[in-house]
Amino acid sequence: MSMTKIPHRLYLTEEQMPKQWFNLRAAMPQQPDPLLNPATLQPLGTADLAPIFCEELARQELDGATPYVDIPEPVQEVYKMYRPSPLIRAYALEKALGTPARIYYKFEGNNTSGSHKLNSAVAQAYYAKQQGLTGVTTETGAGQWGTALSEACAYFGLSCDVYMVKCSYEQKPFRKAVMGVFDAQVTASPSNTTQVGRQILAENPGTTGSLGCAISEAVEAALASGGTKRYVLGSVLNQVVLHQSIIGLETKLAMEQLDEYPDVVVGCAGGGSNLGGLIAPFMADKLQGRSHTRFVAVEPASCPSLTRGRYAYDFCDTGHVTPLARMYTLGSGFIPSANHAGGLRYHGMSPILSKLYHDGYMEAVAYEQSRVFEAAVFFAKHETILPAPESAHAIRGAMDEALKCKQTGEAKTILFGLTGTGYFDMTAYESYLSGRMTDTIPTDEDLQRGFDSLPAIPQNRM
Amino acid sequence: MSMTKIPHRLYLTEEQMPKQWFNLRAAMPQQPDPLLNPATLQPLGTADLAPIFCEELARQELDGATPYVDIPEPVQEVYKMYRPSPLIRAYALEKALGTPARIYYKFEGNNTSGSHKLNSAVAQAYYAKQQGLTGVTTETGAGQWGTALSEACAYFGLSCDVYMVKCSYEQKPFRKAVMGVFDAQVTASPSNTTQVGRQILAENPGTTGSLGCAISEAVEAALASGGTKRYVLGSVLNQVVLHQSIIGLETKLAMEQLDEYPDVVVGCAGGGSNLGGLIAPFMADKLQGRSHTRFVAVEPASCPSLTRGRYAYDFCDTGHVTPLARMYTLGSGFIPSANHAGGLRYHGMSPILSKLYHDGYMEAVAYEQSRVFEAAVFFAKHETILPAPESAHAIRGAMDEALKCKQTGEAKTILFGLTGTGYFDMTAYESYLSGRMTDTIPTDEDLQRGFDSLPAIPQNRM
Repeated sequence: MSMTKIPHRLYLTEEQMPKQWFNLRAAMPQQPDPLLNPATLQPLGTADLAPIFCEELARQELDGATPYVDIPEPVQEVYKMYRPSPLIRAYALEKALGTPARIYYKFEGNNTSGSHKLNSAVAQAYYAKQQGLTGVTTETGAGQWGTALSEACAYFGLSCDVYMVKCSYEQKPFRKAVMGVFDAQVTASPSNTTQVGRQILAENPGTTGSLGCAISEAVEAALASGGTKRYVLGSVLNQVVLHQSIIGLETKLAMEQLDEYPDVVVGCAGGGSNLGGLIAPFMADKLQGRSHTRFVAVEPASCPSLTRGRYAYDFCDTGHVTPLARMYTLGSGFIPSANHAGGLRYHGMSPILSKLYHDGYMEAVAYEQSRVFEAAVFFAKHETILPAPESAHAIRGAMDEALKCKQTGEAKTILFGLTGTGYFDMTAYESYLSGRMTDTIPTDEDLQRGFDSLPAIPQNRM
Repeated sequence: MSMTKIPHRLYLTEEQMPKQWFNLRAAMPQQPDPLLNPATLQPLGTADLAPIFCEELARQELDGATPYVDIPEPVQEVYKMYRPSPLIRAYALEKALGTPARIYYKFEGNNTSGSHKLNSAVAQAYYAKQQGLTGVTTETGAGQWGTALSEACAYFGLSCDVYMVKCSYEQKPFRKAVMGVFDAQVTASPSNTTQVGRQILAENPGTTGSLGCAISEAVEAALASGGTKRYVLGSVLNQVVLHQSIIGLETKLAMEQLDEYPDVVVGCAGGGSNLGGLIAPFMADKLQGRSHTRFVAVEPASCPSLTRGRYAYDFCDTGHVTPLARMYTLGSGFIPSANHAGGLRYHGMSPILSKLYHDGYMEAVAYEQSRVFEAAVFFAKHETILPAPESAHAIRGAMDEALKCKQTGEAKTILFGLTGTGYFDMTAYESYLSGRMTDTIPTDEDLQRGFDSLPAIPQNRM
């Protein structure tokens, strides 16, 4: 570590901002397993993806070889409007914990979407515009991705159809209003506007929806647009991890300026995009033998895809309209407990992170939500930032690593990703503060019901 | 202007951050009129203020002579946790408007309070702690000040009693929840916990409260604490304008790095703290003949204290427990229309700004709220930041200055203050987007009723 005083917040200058994304797959000794066409069980090509995804995004999705990808100038132009994000030294948190560890966090919440999601939304909207499309369709759960995409589409002049999981739509009306400011068309999912939505409603009229179901509707809406729209997704996909590498690249540059390198990198894991982006350049160092950094994925105990899921081929959605991806999954039929407030409710996990975890390059840990909110409130009081519940998983993980250092006396350098702010999650905070929040961990039977929804294909019988 | 490319966002480094506040009064050729004791009508001394205000803050309130005031180290330490705030070049807005003007804004919304209010909250909480107090009392309207003070009190380990205007308390439950995260005690005002609250409720049981009334309750609660607590206020006061000078000082340093100087500075004006802080060092240049910059205060047409108010001695609160300040005021009995959603509802105005306006150093303009929200949505779509309704007044003013430049072809440098974000104001945005928002301008009779509440003292018969 440098002997000079490390500032509380380090911002790169505009010139120092990365001009290329980094493709972590290019550094992996073994590639993630390929996406499969569910009908033929054959690996997908860009032609298969073209009806769903923008061309360039389909290309990025399947390209595991190119290590660096130029960030288009217009995307850089938008990045400059809200980036670089600060790398923050958590002096107050360190002091409150009494730890010898040095804690850093990369804060992605200082933009209107309230999270890192804007990094990929801007890229995806740009490629859609470039291809001459009139708009895009997507799903949103907590609303961060929908907001980010709405912003990006308003900027590039595209229409934006958002299928919002019904329970979020009803519990977070203000998220819908924010998207409305950016002219997005927001529909509660499941809806009567799609075939898959009508089918799900017919089978289960009282359903409050799920991310997997909203994905199905958004994909169908894109396919039904007569080629004028495509579907875009805010996490899980390889292309999204590529775009989110901006987080890790900026972090690495900033840490180099401080003469620092992380011993441990901690991030929350829902679909994996933030964690994949944050760790990308550091993981490459480890894969190539240049470091021994530990990587810790933190997930909710109520939706434990890495810690209790299966590494199997699965659909990315409930309606089974997407390709099959090999990933850690609870099964597309798994539904987290309704009392789970902390986000990260997706049944699967980025195939890149799944592969790294499977091959032993990454650890995973699961926390119950009350411990996560305890960390969130502690962090807010000391660092004055109110974190998103999702981000608070990473805080919990980082705090526990720092407390381990307190016991051992080790002055480790801990880095975590603070993905966003919790201004639209106050109902969950109120539930925690009033003592009404309970924890639910799925039983083995709950998990089995999810696993029973895995596709019965030869690849899953390996 | 420099020929080098001006970045989208400029952050000072931690070392460049100001270590002193700037006291604008010290540069004024004539001082604002002194605060008066309402009982004796004599100018107040620090001893008069000591029961209400922290000692050091009372001293700052009355000190018009000291030009620079050291920012205490612990306050600097907290400033470093969320400052410097960025100076942003509004390239996208300029392009969208087609203006030759160069537009800059200083964005104070990137902290959990969502506004510039934290700058003074940290200072006031620190001085309270330093004096050995156990806590502070205050009022909040929209909730930004209450949130900021809660954060600051949690950091310094003080209790925080917030009297929140009842209509805000009911319309913005999430604001209350955020303050709860920081352990603040939030009471809807008027309440039964104070004598003045009980009296107001007895006279008008259905009242939804006002800022002036909440101030009365908070002052009474401090006075009733047996000396363990003091009252703190987030705007209007000289001490607050002093603390907020950090905004203008950072802005001036950043603009110097860009070889820029504003031709026009625009800010929203409620109590005047953000505007006073932003303009402070630039106004000093003008007062001392070093520039001809124009200063424009923007206020809501429904609460037009500068453009339609009287320059008179008035109480700062409805219950008449505060000192008398000479300021532009609509009378403490003035109540803005209930349909006014844009904040800035205070009947008075900073005595410093009032004096500058009265002496012709500053202009003022009033906008109806629908035009303000129109600017807010336009700004959000192009600059991707969702502004607070209060801040949107400044956006409207700056946009109109830029459009004037478009007509004249002048490439002026326009600076405005973007004080905060609008995440807790989505009800107002929804009202605007759905076409339900209406404008109400007080009639002369409405104003007269407010003026009738002005104290009938010799000073007001001048």
